Amino acid sequence: MKPVTVCVIPGDDAAPEVVRPTVEVLRALAPDIRFVEAISGREAQALHGDPFPAQTREAIDAADCTLFGASGGPSRPVLWYLRWGKQTAVNIRPVRWYPGYQSPMAHPERIDYVIVRENLEGMYPPREGALSELSALASSSSWWQPPVEGQQGTYAVRVCTDEQSQRVADAACQLALKRKEAGYPGRVTLGAKYSILPKTDGRFREIVRETVARYPELQYQEFLVDDLARRLIAVPETLDVVVLNNEHGDILADAASGTIGGLGLAPSACYGDSYAYFEPVHGSAPDLAGKNVINPTAMLLSGAMLLERYGYARQAEVLRAALAQIYQEGRVLTVDQGGSASTTDFVEAVQLALAQLTV
Amino acid sequence: MKPVTVCVIPGDDAAPEVVRPTVEVLRALAPDIRFVEAISGREAQALHGDPFPAQTREAIDAADCTLFGASGGPSRPVLWYLRWGKQTAVNIRPVRWYPGYQSPMAHPERIDYVIVRENLEGMYPPREGALSELSALASSSSWWQPPVEGQQGTYAVRVCTDEQSQRVADAACQLALKRKEAGYPGRVTLGAKYSILPKTDGRFREIVRETVARYPELQYQEFLVDDLARRLIAVPETLDVVVLNNEHGDILADAASGTIGGLGLAPSACYGDSYAYFEPVHGSAPDLAGKNVINPTAMLLSGAMLLERYGYARQAEVLRAALAQIYQEGRVLTVDQGGSASTTDFVEAVQLALAQLTV
Repeated sequence: MKPVTVCVIPGDDAAPEVVRPTVEVLRALAPDIRFVEAISGREAQALHGDPFPAQTREAIDAADCTLFGASGGPSRPVLWYLRWGKQTAVNIRPVRWYPGYQSPMAHPERIDYVIVRENLEGMYPPREGALSELSALASSSSWWQPPVEGQQGTYAVRVCTDEQSQRVADAACQLALKRKEAGYPGRVTLGAKYSILPKTDGRFREIVRETVARYPELQYQEFLVDDLARRLIAVPETLDVVVLNNEHGDILADAASGTIGGLGLAPSACYGDSYAYFEPVHGSAPDLAGKNVINPTAMLLSGAMLLERYGYARQAEVLRAALAQIYQEGRVLTVDQGGSASTTDFVEAVQLALAQLTV
Repeated sequence: MKPVTVCVIPGDDAAPEVVRPTVEVLRALAPDIRFVEAISGREAQALHGDPFPAQTREAIDAADCTLFGASGGPSRPVLWYLRWGKQTAVNIRPVRWYPGYQSPMAHPERIDYVIVRENLEGMYPPREGALSELSALASSSSWWQPPVEGQQGTYAVRVCTDEQSQRVADAACQLALKRKEAGYPGRVTLGAKYSILPKTDGRFREIVRETVARYPELQYQEFLVDDLARRLIAVPETLDVVVLNNEHGDILADAASGTIGGLGLAPSACYGDSYAYFEPVHGSAPDLAGKNVINPTAMLLSGAMLLERYGYARQAEVLRAALAQIYQEGRVLTVDQGGSASTTDFVEAVQLALAQLTV
């Protein structure tokens, strides 16, 4: 079997401080994986006069997947290439509380589900313009809409293709089937505004519902997205696999990360037909850059998703177990989790736990 | 002074069970107010062959404001008339925890802010159609967008006028000034996706920011809406007056109601230049209809907003104090709050508390 090649792009601001130790940890767990580092952002600008040089694009293309730190602005072209250039159609955001996570909820032990988010369309990237253009659309007039002609303002368009909706629906069902094998209920929950947007969110709902119906072993439930936003706070234990469009997923996944204890704990992976990238959702945290205090948990858990994706399921489990042990013990925690450990302290604790677990 | 006239529309399913006792309570507190009941939905269909008969529209028009139960579908034309017909431009959603509310948060005592939501545009009402129409827009092609031509799919349009953005910004500032007088920090927080949608959400941000800047006594902060969704879970104590567009407000206000203990506790008011309507946000709760178990708190607190709006600020405070006392004592609670009291039991407890407080 050809070894897996991972392109490593440390990204902007504080992101490299979690990327580099994560690569070390992954190397130790899966020595077969080939890691190739490429640069972006300010460093690439200084060296090649381009924040996203051809060499970096070629390194992305030559790899099976990319481990990406985060963009704080300068590396944004990399992110856009990883998403739209490589057509990574589905964003997977696990939402799981581990004992020891500093959650603001009274009962965070109920939180263990996964958000499946459409990743390529909706309102991102933007299609925006002046209101006057809208008169060209057949939808531009209805009795309850004030006419937009003559008003000062702008529009944005949400796009919803059957193809992308189908991909997301398929990904959600596959994930629910896999989780069911591991003891989860096998329940797909759709959130959308189908009551008000029958043609876009209504069509998305129809495709997801019909796809789930093809698997008699799966359950299906659906809620208006506003109600679902409330449910992930009020009754997270009723959720298993949650399907959302791009904007709704963007908002609800961050809210969900708030329920477990913050962005520093929230991993993320984006999967396409022929490519994938792994990135924590906390962004580049410019206020933490250079301080050796950023929490590497989200990046390490994203690394665990990488391991699992490429045939190292056992190693992924060991990595998660090492993190679980550290939070359970609560001795080595970063500042965002109420501790005073540095990034380096935390990573050393992970390596120590791994050494004990893999003996 | 001409007495205030309130049109009362009980609405669908379980909604009348909270509207009628609320009117009784309001009558007792402010005997000058004239309440005129009008019908809608199934009852109006049976009597007049129309779920929104001319008589009801005329009753709405003849009043200063409407107290509306909720629409479960049949009364939707009423809701649309109250919103777009009467141009109630700004939706106010207070988010406040009272001791005794069954919140899922570990520290709900930190929650006391107000969401100011744009109420007339954005993506509601829908402007939707087939993707093929989009080629008429100047925004239809950019390198990172897959061409929509030839793809099966649909679009929806978000509209953002300067006029509505300005109204919402003004309403938020007025509210923040008023709250500051009462001891709140006088802080306006904007949430929007200005990073990705510079022309719509970016313009909204610009108008809100410039408007707040005209009041040196107010503070301003802004967050991407996904981050703000996390913050209302993680650090609600940093919020005072939150400004959002229509869809974002719809989603975040329901999430916020989840943090205090549910929709049964969440009041709402919609204000236009010359009209207002008051409606709890829990919807018509068809599963509770006819059972005398629905929690009337949201409707009573919406009634308190009505009192405050029309010059009965002291009576509004007394009503809120009565509710606070009931939750503090925790003896008479409805099923959604972990009790076994009926709607009638709860309303009687409110009336008793009011009698004691107003002696």
